[in-house]
Amino acid sequence: MINISVLGYGTVGSGVVEVLNTNQDSINKKAGNEINVKYVLDLRDFEGDPIQKKVVHDYSVIVNDPDVQIIVETMGGTNPAYQFVKEALEKGKSVCTSNKELVAKHGAELLQIAREKKVNFLFEASVGGGIPIIRPLNQSLTADEIEEITGILNGTTNYILTKMSTEGSDFETVLKDAQAKGYAERNPEADVEGYDACRKIAILTSLAYGMQVDYEDIYTEGITKITDKDIKYAKALNASIKIFGTSKKSGDKVYAMVAPMMINDKHPLYSVNDVFNGIFVKGNLLGDVMFYGKGAGKLPTASAVVADVVDAAKHLGTNIMTIWSSKKLELASIDEASQKFFVRLEGSKEQNEAKVKEVFGTVTEVKAGFQDEYAFITPEMKEKAFGEAVNKFENMISRIRVAF
Amino acid sequence: MINISVLGYGTVGSGVVEVLNTNQDSINKKAGNEINVKYVLDLRDFEGDPIQKKVVHDYSVIVNDPDVQIIVETMGGTNPAYQFVKEALEKGKSVCTSNKELVAKHGAELLQIAREKKVNFLFEASVGGGIPIIRPLNQSLTADEIEEITGILNGTTNYILTKMSTEGSDFETVLKDAQAKGYAERNPEADVEGYDACRKIAILTSLAYGMQVDYEDIYTEGITKITDKDIKYAKALNASIKIFGTSKKSGDKVYAMVAPMMINDKHPLYSVNDVFNGIFVKGNLLGDVMFYGKGAGKLPTASAVVADVVDAAKHLGTNIMTIWSSKKLELASIDEASQKFFVRLEGSKEQNEAKVKEVFGTVTEVKAGFQDEYAFITPEMKEKAFGEAVNKFENMISRIRVAF
Repeated sequence: MINISVLGYGTVGSGVVEVLNTNQDSINKKAGNEINVKYVLDLRDFEGDPIQKKVVHDYSVIVNDPDVQIIVETMGGTNPAYQFVKEALEKGKSVCTSNKELVAKHGAELLQIAREKKVNFLFEASVGGGIPIIRPLNQSLTADEIEEITGILNGTTNYILTKMSTEGSDFETVLKDAQAKGYAERNPEADVEGYDACRKIAILTSLAYGMQVDYEDIYTEGITKITDKDIKYAKALNASIKIFGTSKKSGDKVYAMVAPMMINDKHPLYSVNDVFNGIFVKGNLLGDVMFYGKGAGKLPTASAVVADVVDAAKHLGTNIMTIWSSKKLELASIDEASQKFFVRLEGSKEQNEAKVKEVFGTVTEVKAGFQDEYAFITPEMKEKAFGEAVNKFENMISRIRVAF
Repeated sequence: MINISVLGYGTVGSGVVEVLNTNQDSINKKAGNEINVKYVLDLRDFEGDPIQKKVVHDYSVIVNDPDVQIIVETMGGTNPAYQFVKEALEKGKSVCTSNKELVAKHGAELLQIAREKKVNFLFEASVGGGIPIIRPLNQSLTADEIEEITGILNGTTNYILTKMSTEGSDFETVLKDAQAKGYAERNPEADVEGYDACRKIAILTSLAYGMQVDYEDIYTEGITKITDKDIKYAKALNASIKIFGTSKKSGDKVYAMVAPMMINDKHPLYSVNDVFNGIFVKGNLLGDVMFYGKGAGKLPTASAVVADVVDAAKHLGTNIMTIWSSKKLELASIDEASQKFFVRLEGSKEQNEAKVKEVFGTVTEVKAGFQDEYAFITPEMKEKAFGEAVNKFENMISRIRVAF
């Protein structure tokens, strides 16, 4: 029997217990051992709930119990998750976590401790919910040099953008609907400002290059400025707007960003809608592979955590090598990244055309039936040059990067 | 240094050497050791090629060399691949193979020997070419009970069906074009009759349920009877025709089949075109996940083999547990599988309508502008009932299963 303990009995933590109960037989068979939940750490008591008899309020009971071999951390945040996880690893317990903040910030250090102690620090659920992406990146795509990772990494914003597109509603209306349905949190900042996607692309990029990518260094732009009019222009182009987390190798440099993108149906992520996530990886020999599934939700996320528990159970006493050193990967400035941009200006075509031609050269006009504005797609140009060019237009309404 | 040997220097075998040479540094870093190709087994000499000095013609040189720790088998077929691989495992060498025939037929036994000898038998490249699917199924989807696996598992037939659809050409014309481009073999039977997809769905189903699925037991239907007229009907329905390998759990039974399917754009595999493969897996808690990429080709397949070599190098002396017992999984008869069917009959609507209504009940007519035939989609019905019903029509031109 392998004893595990779950830290935090919220959505994902209670999901982990539910997954273990529901698929008990097949999970034990695959783990090669019976998995038993010995403790649950939570501030609450859960009176009347069958879990009540396993609840403890004091972490030292868990971390000092030599019978506990695997810790599941589903508290979120870094305090006290970081201290708890570090202590568990140092005491020779494996840890499985869904906590992207913890992994993005302290992944390199925690993996190092796990290596020294011959235990495992696993975090499949921290990116892409139930979609296998961490393990494939670590263990399946190892023959390739990764040239690009681009993902729709946040289900909430993908839901909002999909609804804005299908229903023609504006951002605020759809956000309220998403909050009412439980798809968006009451404080939606982490999702809609792109912070969540930023931590996830930081984790994927760190694993792809084996070095620490600090998420604070990643240019991050959310979807709060996307309007229903922008969506109508996208539709006029048979395109859609998605928020991408991307990292790309360019020569010996890597740059990363989170930003809304206009894509058309030639893009492998075009049909990733609603709360689904999709992650596209380009290897130098393999070409393109894509992973798709539910990027969030109680059971898909808990399923990924439990798959890590099974892996940890199969690897008791052996460290699964994961290359992610604490050496910092200096990201290149996105100034040199190059693409087309969709731009909307106040005023008529006649009022803007000459100046636009002077500044951007030949552009492609986009019409969506709105009066008193002029919209176009620029030629491919560098971020820096675009920034300087667009600064010359005080009448700019919006601009969105274009990937076609 | 870890010495490997490559058996068979054909497309995939030479690709393995190319991948190892191209990404030498990053591969050695991920393997935690230098990977060195010590021997290549082939009947040919490759005079003047740098590989020449590594070529041997006698397998006993390789299998009896205690310095060789990992064998790459890329010969194909089961004779002599099976004997060679078995001997290698028995002598304590890990084996990585791209050989679906070998894996489908002898996977359970070879995994058992690997387990006893504390080595590994890995076969990521046997299904889906460069797409990670074997390892995710074994190691990432372990918390779930698998309810369905459906894949576009053969790039050649997907290419043919895509071209028939985009160019309106008939099967024979497109097959000749595919052969000229090297996408189809001169003897295309294994692909176009569905045998290749059948072996692959047998492997995936064996892994999903941990028991032996004999591919001979899987109902298999190829694409040779699909005509340009069938494709035009599909287009009239905004649908496309794909050849699927499928296994589904229904109660405590599993059934499996390979057959052409009409699908529409609501299906997750709808946009998998050309030589790409896509594999869709449904877990009881996870929901749907999908894996997409190049299912064939020298470098994508070789990349998957080399990823297995890296994994074998990381696990020298430790067996990665894979549950696939030799106990046979008795597949349920597809007689009880239930779906709609597209049917074309000779003769006009007037000539057929009454009898069709009598036999099938209310059907949905499909029009694609062809005279002298009557086409329709049946209500959902069991395979057996459909077979009996359609036997009453000697004027049947074709029938294709429908998944919408």
